[in-house]
Order: sequence, then structure tokens, then C-alpha cells
Amino acid sequence: MFPYVSPPDESAKRDALARQDRLTKPAGALGKLEQLGVWVASCQGVCPPKPFTRPRVIVFAGDHGIAAKGVSAYPTEVTGQMVANFLNGGAAVNVLATTAGATVRVVDMSVASDVAESVAEFKVRKSSGSIDHEDALTEDEVKAAVEAGKTIADQEVDGGADLLIAGDMGIGNTTPAAVLVAALTGAEPVAVVGRGTGIDDQTWMRKTAAIRDALRRARQVSAEPMALLKTTAGADIAAMAGFLAQASVRKTPVILDGVVSTAAALVAEELAPGARLWWVAGHQSTEPSHKLALEQLGLEPLLEMDMRLGEGSGALAAFPLVAMATRILAEMATFQDANISGPAD
Amino acid sequence: MFPYVSPPDESAKRDALARQDRLTKPAGALGKLEQLGVWVASCQGVCPPKPFTRPRVIVFAGDHGIAAKGVSAYPTEVTGQMVANFLNGGAAVNVLATTAGATVRVVDMSVASDVAESVAEFKVRKSSGSIDHEDALTEDEVKAAVEAGKTIADQEVDGGADLLIAGDMGIGNTTPAAVLVAALTGAEPVAVVGRGTGIDDQTWMRKTAAIRDALRRARQVSAEPMALLKTTAGADIAAMAGFLAQASVRKTPVILDGVVSTAAALVAEELAPGARLWWVAGHQSTEPSHKLALEQLGLEPLLEMDMRLGEGSGALAAFPLVAMATRILAEMATFQDANISGPAD
Repeated sequence: MFPYVSPPDESAKRDALARQDRLTKPAGALGKLEQLGVWVASCQGVCPPKPFTRPRVIVFAGDHGIAAKGVSAYPTEVTGQMVANFLNGGAAVNVLATTAGATVRVVDMSVASDVAESVAEFKVRKSSGSIDHEDALTEDEVKAAVEAGKTIADQEVDGGADLLIAGDMGIGNTTPAAVLVAALTGAEPVAVVGRGTGIDDQTWMRKTAAIRDALRRARQVSAEPMALLKTTAGADIAAMAGFLAQASVRKTPVILDGVVSTAAALVAEELAPGARLWWVAGHQSTEPSHKLALEQLGLEPLLEMDMRLGEGSGALAAFPLVAMATRILAEMATFQDANISGPAD
Repeated sequence: MFPYVSPPDESAKRDALARQDRLTKPAGALGKLEQLGVWVASCQGVCPPKPFTRPRVIVFAGDHGIAAKGVSAYPTEVTGQMVANFLNGGAAVNVLATTAGATVRVVDMSVASDVAESVAEFKVRKSSGSIDHEDALTEDEVKAAVEAGKTIADQEVDGGADLLIAGDMGIGNTTPAAVLVAALTGAEPVAVVGRGTGIDDQTWMRKTAAIRDALRRARQVSAEPMALLKTTAGADIAAMAGFLAQASVRKTPVILDGVVSTAAALVAEELAPGARLWWVAGHQSTEPSHKLALEQLGLEPLLEMDMRLGEGSGALAAFPLVAMATRILAEMATFQDANISGPAD
């Protein structure tokens, strides 16, 4: 389904590492900003790297049948209402994107209500199966969802996007995300269950039970990524996995967001091994399974802000660091340019 | 020297806290971004807060007599060369400020060479005394330096600056900074000595000895902030202390940078108690005394990026988070605006 993923360019990486040491600052003094800049150069295959001109957030919206089991603090209708809020520019993702200089696209993959025709082009179905006892999707649906994600990545890259973020919106979606993380890391249900939108203890118990039951089904197919998405994901998360895999095929850097985006990323790495080299982790959310997923991917989060909203918010909060790191490497003077003395001796 | 510092506005803070819970996101889901937004509203005394329009970085440049004892990896001449680099726009602070939408002003307080007339208006002297055995400044010099910092803060606030950052440039300046932190926190020399621009083990030993000797002199006056600045600081750091104190008198929020800016902030809090309520910590640098200073001020760093450059770079890296937090609180739709359901029950 996905071709071989090439790693980011080694020669640009070497050039970038060498250039960092020629810029007018002590070697290494910008810490992780320097490593980030080197990563951007290696993704772009050129040093100095080019400042980003079209960072794009795609919010994948979908409902989840498991929500009917009372695993969330919010009613299902909020998913569709929030899609309308995104389209009106009133949500966190809109404000953060505007501040960061990014633009937002919303895709209704599987919202339970009919929201807006304009964003339903790839809609696979309404909601998903209740994953504690049935598959989230049929065989055809999971294929269509992953294919949609792939197409969206292609559309964006062909449209000039030079950095991609996958955001999520869907009441109940941290339940399938936690199951995916547990299935792919071998963690127990109690290690992956989190407070989501802010659930109480009763809801916590229902959520833990749902994760336990769904995990029993997911573990049987954890070695087969498409079957795992069919069993557990929902069309929104399946599309995100396809999107993240294809972004790396198209050599486009990605900032991962929270637990839903990172759970999809874990599956994307199975679908397209090596994809993770094209990603950085925007932040560490408060969801415990997010930490497990990032560790499995070998990614260190740029921010720890106790965020747990999704929508791409944590990735957008980190975007300015990536933009700054890129421009540092592109625009700072070298010691030679500025005629500045190096270290004594 | 400084009048009473009023705390940020409690009523705007209450309004901001209440407004966060009405915005279209689960309560608390934006974590530290929400707390930051509340702080900005309380500093501005209004909710919703106004997006920043003139964030300003002032880089205080100065040389330090102690550098002659071989405590730095770089020769003293680099301070003046870097001032020229700032004026040409080639340094990290320039690139970060441009990316963040901030502007930079350089002030030569005590550079050892003559650099640029245009930035020497407040120049107190060249370099400083070698603080291991003599005072950094005379009585008149320390007064002039603190007064200069105060005047610069007034000029900036009167010129429309709505957020201030104090950056540093000066070969050898982490030595006096470490001494100030040790004198005001009671730490031992070995607990505050750091690698600065990247020193080797021989230089480390010389730096530790210099800090030990300077600290013996500083401890005797640690209860008197002006005497402490005279003994230890240099005109650049003394000016930063005056600047940070006056920023709070003028009710203007500040993002602290690394160890030099934060050492000056520790003294500013002594000069103008309560000033720290007007500050956030941009980042945690790799300098060990920076952590001690932030703990003493009760400030949690927004970023941990292993940075150790100074110039205001860590504060600028954090500025987009403050800008985003402000606009979230100002611009997001409320549940009522967007007609979105609240939590179930």
C-alpha cells in the first residue's frame, strides 16, 4: 500500500551539522533548536534549509461507537458542533494556527451527524462499531479511510504544504487511541487509560473496562496494521495513519500532536517503516499512553505544557520552535561573515 | 530607589479564569497555556487580554574584568564583535526576534572596546573590576548603571512596548551571574559553576576558583542589593536589574531569559519586592545556577531546550507560547457563542 520510505537526506544533515558550528554562537549553545534545524535541513535535503511557507493542519473528525458506553465527559453531538466551530474559526486550533502562521483544513471522516457537505468529500461512514465487542470498521471502510488519508497528504503536498500536522476531533477518541497504543507497545489497560476531556471516577471505570475488552480483540491482530485499524481505529484515526505514512513517502516533515495523532503514527510506522524519521513530537500531553507511544517511536517531545486538547493544538504550540530552528540555520551570520573571533587557543 | 510594586490585577485574573472555562475546550485542556493567558490578563488588568503589538528585547552588553583570569572559552574582544553582529542583524537574537515578531535594541553598558557610538548613550565604563579580589564597580558607577536600566525601561514602556525581555552579551558574564545566585540562594561555588560558552576542565577549575573568591566578598553584602551589585555585577548586569525592577513598576510583563538575566532578576526582586509577579521564566538553560535562581523566584520554566546562549534567545523562543496563550483567551469562541453542548450531566 505504501512504497519504501527513504530516510531524510544524510548529506544535508552533515552540511547542517557543520554549518551550526560556523554560526556566531558557541557550538551547541542553542541546544535542541540546533538539532531541530539539522532535522529540517535533512528533511528538505538542502542546507541552509528554507523557512516554511505553508505549514498545514488537517483536523480529522470522527465519532466513535464506544462513546455510547459512557467513556467521555461530553456527549457525541459535540464532535459535529466542533467541526462547525472549526469552520467558523472559533476553536483553539484556529487561533493557534493564525498565531503560528499556519492554515487549517477540516475533514469529516466519520462524524455521527451531517455537518458540512464541504468537508465530507472523504466521509466513510457515520461513527464506528463499538470496539469493546465489534470491529470499528469493515474491510472496505478501513481501506477507504487509509486511502483517503493518503490522498489528502498528496493533495496537501501537491498544493505546496511544506510541513504537516494531523489533528483530531472526536468525542471518545482517546479510547481507541489508548487501545492502539496498548496493542502496539504491550502495555496493560491501566497503563494507558487517561482522563481524556476530564472524566470522573465512574467514567474512568467504564473507560478502563472498554479498553480492556477492546484490547482483547486488538491484540489478536496487532501484527497486521490494516487489521488493527479495522478492529480498533475508526475512520478518522485510520485516515490519520494513512496521512502520516504518505507524508513521509512524500518527504514532508510532520509535527505530531497528542495521543490520538501519535497512536495513528504508531500504526503509520507499521504501514510504512521508517516514517518516524520524518516526524518530531510537538509535545507530551497528560495522557499516559502518549508517553508510551512517543517512547516506542523514539521521539522526545519539544514541549510539556500539560495540554490534552487534540485538534493539533500541541503540535501548533511547538511549530514556532521548528520555524525558529529553521531560520537560525538559514539566516544567522557565520563567524567568518561577521569577522568574529573563535574560542581562545 | 524603586517605589512599591503593585501585584498584577486580581479582578482581571478572576475574569480570565472564568473565561477560560467558557471557551470551546474542556476546562483546563490547554494546560499551562491557560495559566499563561490568565497571567497576561492580570498583568494587563483586562480580560480578554490584548494581543502583544510591541514585544521588545534589550540586549545589555558589557565586559567583565574576571575574564582576564581565564574563565571563558572565548577572548574578551568577542563582546564588542557580537555587538556589531547584533547591529548588523546576524546574531541568534536577531533571527529569533524577527521570527517571533519582536524587535531588538542593543545597549553598550560596559564593553571593553569602543563599538558603536549609537548604542553607547548609557555606557558607564569599560569592563569591570576583577571580582575575585576587587569590586566590579564604584559607588557612582553602580548607581549610574541601575539608573540607566530604569531609564531604558521607562523609554521602552513610554514607546509602546507591551512585553519586555532583557538579554545579555558579555564574555565571562556567567561568572558574576553564578556568584550573584550563590550569594542570594546560599549555594556553594560547585553548585553554581557551569560550562558557560563551553569551557574545558582547566577553565572549569579556574572559573570555580574565581567564583569561590568572589563569593567570599559577595556574601558580606548579600543583604544589600546595591552593595551586592557594586561588589559583583558589572554595569551590564546592574542595568538589567534596574530594568527588570522598573518594568514591574511600570506594570509591564517580562519573559526572563537565561542565567544572567535571571541572576539580575534575583537582585531586582530585592530592589523591588514583588517584581517577580510580573515575570515568567522563558526557559531552563543548562547552567546549574539558573535552576537555583528560578526556584528561588518561584518560577517554572516554559521550555527546556538545553539552550545556553543568552542574548534573550531562550525568552524569545518562549515568546510565541505567551502570544498564543494571549490570543487563545482573547479570540476563541465560547460554548455559548458557538452553541456547543457542555459536559454530559
